[in-house]
Amino acid sequence: MEEVISEGDDVLLYLSGDKRWLVKVKVDKKVHTHAGYIEGSNIIGKRYGEAVKSNLGRNFWLLKPTVEDYVLKCERKTQVVYPKDMGLIAAKTGLTSGSIVVEAGTGSGALTMFLANIVKPTGHVYSMELKEEFLDVARRNLKRSGLLDYVTLSLGDASQGFGVIDADVAVIDVGDPWRLVESAWRALKGAGKIVSISPTMNQVEKTYEALLRTGFVDVECVEVLVRSMQVKSGATRPSTRMIGHTAYLTFARKVFGDEKTLKEGDTESIGVVSDEEG
Amino acid sequence: MEEVISEGDDVLLYLSGDKRWLVKVKVDKKVHTHAGYIEGSNIIGKRYGEAVKSNLGRNFWLLKPTVEDYVLKCERKTQVVYPKDMGLIAAKTGLTSGSIVVEAGTGSGALTMFLANIVKPTGHVYSMELKEEFLDVARRNLKRSGLLDYVTLSLGDASQGFGVIDADVAVIDVGDPWRLVESAWRALKGAGKIVSISPTMNQVEKTYEALLRTGFVDVECVEVLVRSMQVKSGATRPSTRMIGHTAYLTFARKVFGDEKTLKEGDTESIGVVSDEEG
Amino acid sequence: MEEVISEGDDVLLYLSGDKRWLVKVKVDKKVHTHAGYIEGSNIIGKRYGEAVKSNLGRNFWLLKPTVEDYVLKCERKTQVVYPKDMGLIAAKTGLTSGSIVVEAGTGSGALTMFLANIVKPTGHVYSMELKEEFLDVARRNLKRSGLLDYVTLSLGDASQGFGVIDADVAVIDVGDPWRLVESAWRALKGAGKIVSISPTMNQVEKTYEALLRTGFVDVECVEVLVRSMQVKSGATRPSTRMIGHTAYLTFARKVFGDEKTLKEGDTESIGVVSDEEG
Amino acid sequence: MEEVISEGDDVLLYLSGDKRWLVKVKVDKKVHTHAGYIEGSNIIGKRYGEAVKSNLGRNFWLLKPTVEDYVLKCERKTQVVYPKDMGLIAAKTGLTSGSIVVEAGTGSGALTMFLANIVKPTGHVYSMELKEEFLDVARRNLKRSGLLDYVTLSLGDASQGFGVIDADVAVIDVGDPWRLVESAWRALKGAGKIVSISPTMNQVEKTYEALLRTGFVDVECVEVLVRSMQVKSGATRPSTRMIGHTAYLTFARKVFGDEKTLKEGDTESIGVVSDEEG
Repeated sequence: MEEVISEGDDVLLYLSGDKRWLVKVKVDKKVHTHAGYIEGSNIIGKRYGEAVKSNLGRNFWLLKPTVEDYVLKCERKTQVVYPKDMGLIAAKTGLTSGSIVVEAGTGSGALTMFLANIVKPTGHVYSMELKEEFLDVARRNLKRSGLLDYVTLSLGDASQGFGVIDADVAVIDVGDPWRLVESAWRALKGAGKIVSISPTMNQVEKTYEALLRTGFVDVECVEVLVRSMQVKSGATRPSTRMIGHTAYLTFARKVFGDEKTLKEGDTESIGVVSDEEG
Repeated sequence: MEEVISEGDDVLLYLSGDKRWLVKVKVDKKVHTHAGYIEGSNIIGKRYGEAVKSNLGRNFWLLKPTVEDYVLKCERKTQVVYPKDMGLIAAKTGLTSGSIVVEAGTGSGALTMFLANIVKPTGHVYSMELKEEFLDVARRNLKRSGLLDYVTLSLGDASQGFGVIDADVAVIDVGDPWRLVESAWRALKGAGKIVSISPTMNQVEKTYEALLRTGFVDVECVEVLVRSMQVKSGATRPSTRMIGHTAYLTFARKVFGDEKTLKEGDTESIGVVSDEEG
Repeated sequence: MEEVISEGDDVLLYLSGDKRWLVKVKVDKKVHTHAGYIEGSNIIGKRYGEAVKSNLGRNFWLLKPTVEDYVLKCERKTQVVYPKDMGLIAAKTGLTSGSIVVEAGTGSGALTMFLANIVKPTGHVYSMELKEEFLDVARRNLKRSGLLDYVTLSLGDASQGFGVIDADVAVIDVGDPWRLVESAWRALKGAGKIVSISPTMNQVEKTYEALLRTGFVDVECVEVLVRSMQVKSGATRPSTRMIGHTAYLTFARKVFGDEKTLKEGDTESIGVVSDEEG
Repeated sequence: MEEVISEGDDVLLYLSGDKRWLVKVKVDKKVHTHAGYIEGSNIIGKRYGEAVKSNLGRNFWLLKPTVEDYVLKCERKTQVVYPKDMGLIAAKTGLTSGSIVVEAGTGSGALTMFLANIVKPTGHVYSMELKEEFLDVARRNLKRSGLLDYVTLSLGDASQGFGVIDADVAVIDVGDPWRLVESAWRALKGAGKIVSISPTMNQVEKTYEALLRTGFVDVECVEVLVRSMQVKSGATRPSTRMIGHTAYLTFARKVFGDEKTLKEGDTESIGVVSDEEG
């Protein structure tokens, strides 16, 4: 059934390109833009997908925000993880409704929102952050997106433990991920997946070593590049500028192996990633 | 609680690198590899994350397959969508538990598995395919991964309609996506998202035009590149070879606009993607 | 022998990063920068590689400009070809001292400078341009870089002929390159190389067809991406932003083949580029 | 004047795609291919750009080899530098006819050929190599391409000095480039350019530090990616596979600065590369 927009609903007002506003609709509030204002009372009762006109006669589309819109429009105190990286994290960890996730480095909560949106309603994200001011921002972002019920935020150092066991996925988004590898190991169930998000090669090297030492296999490190295309009939081309780098993503899976077992096996080739990656 | 492996469970036997086998465990079956065989009876009763030895003394890790493992190991008759592309589709459509998805071009069912894994248990994927032989393959792949319950497969031409309304997301993975844009529009709810997957620029151009003509806005076309890194302390570098191209992904959102409304608004700039894309 | 800087010499005053000034030194002229001014009399008599101080005590290095500096600092009326693309053009056409080059689309003369710098002193670049205002800019840029002696600039439409025969290389940098393919064929010697520079896929397609039709083989189309690295001990990473696209480069070699010969041979596979390209 | 092929000339026999043979023509020799053989006597007297038929009636084009052909077809004992990287080296060092180049790490001589082809006839490349067997290969490759006259090959460790002063460009292609930075500094003229070619990040970091310490400024590190396009009317797309990484290229310019001068200036920001790079 088509959804009708009511008081208090979130709407993405879309004019064109990146001219878009994520707002909570209130009957007696105007939304102001450079292309005029829109009365809340004109929005309420419309369906998502319909248009309204601003007082200047400009056409705004009423779109239902997706989790990507909440991510891109979130209040931020920190560099947030990009949708391109979020997507690969979902694809490679096998995240699904019901998954239990531990996260270190809540930051502004952008990735937390994305994770919660996939694991809900029966799964849960336990997210830890060292700085209280970030937690406050993350809480506001999660509340706004309606995902706070699926997240437990806590202040603290995840290297002391996540306070969770049998997690399906551990997500590490801090500056010194290698310090948290042991905690993540303890929080994960057997064969659970870990992903670490780091901008520099040197962080990747240290984390990689910590993973192999602690009891992880199938270690793989990738980076994701997204190119946008300018599509125009007869003149299609890639866009002139692009994001050249955000972060390396390092994935691995927990095993129950003491050093001896790992050495006996094929440790020498653990972590050898195949040369091609799609 | 740690999961104990039982008769009939799926296990990813992991030796190293891309030497890995996805098997259904049976007590009286041996798994044969180039590094020896493993007795099913040795696997049953172990936890995921533990190791078993082959008759040649090689160490195999018992991993719980993720949806990515099912995708990479699926039986295939067609080019399958890559995890890198699946991830961005999930991130940009806002796919979540409970989403209703229509898909045209089931192919081998790899993307179908991925979609079903996220929308389950309350959501559903309605997937259409023109060729019966592909549907048979897809059905086997979905059954093996335990996701068939969340998918309705049907033989037919989606340009005649999906037989579904109020879908959240439409996924088009066929050679002539522009032919299906109208059907997708009818199947989607207002503001619902569409994504089309095409290897060539020319397919993108035609689809792009069909989207704008039919009643979609926020049209955006990107491609995803993944580079894998060879991590080694003191000698880290990107891998020598990589996948250079799989497909362009074109995203848009359904609006209720006849041509007149679209023209009155800011149609001239609809689909202008911002120059940078993360 | 170390070169001593004299009146009238060009110097690249290098402060740091992209803070650099390309100037002609005059004994009685000051060079003004945001970090103070430098007296011309302080520069004259110094060697390239030495430093001078501005009146504010800041250190400026006296560097000898390379052709890349002239390209990056040239006066421009048009989008200029990037060093990354210039480099591949040199590498793939086998440009060398003594080469005869015809160029269509002088633009601001940036690429012309680069070509002239390699073919000099015995080679020559014959460059045609439709717009007189561009030719004036190009002439000034070539004069400043000391390369004008190796270039003949002319106003006109290269589709009417370059007025040159037996050229080694033809460079086409115009919006409708397919129109010039025949002229280029006539200007080139047998087995001579052509390169066409175009931002859009559609230009590439049309040019590609014109090349095959006119008598070119070994047609190959590539694009070059350059990523810059931020190097810092223990924190090395690719830069956040990069140029996502400038142009596609299409290369081919002239043959003496009428359509019949071409058809008899392996025409069907002409232009099949191998799947990997370094 | 069109060149007529004579006894002893080099010809690239081009069938299609990467089916091509680089041969020295002899009147009484046959060239054997999977598509039949071609008589030397049929080639002699023809012009470059003409075709000959094999005994099986297949059409082969007679192309004049460029330096790229010699590079791609050279005898190799080592990983050779790719045309994409060679091109950027030429573009960023300002290499020109008459340049004096010192090179460490001759390897198979592929890059040496490319450098010699640009600096000839009045310039020269002084190339050092530690392994005699590589020098022998390089000498054969240079001789075959007709470029040996412009190169001096020597056996030895360049860290002990190149035996050259006032070079315009230093090219370092060894596993431990940081060891050679001082020698290169001594060999270069003031403001001369150095480029170091290394596959790993860690080599780049060490070299970077050595450059800053020794007296180089404008340090810049990039990598070049080339994507090939499959052009076909109405179905153009990037190729499926590509080379994901060959080497990082680190460029810098020599200055006469003791540590004190460097510190007084803007050392803290030396080597800060701008965020975008074309």
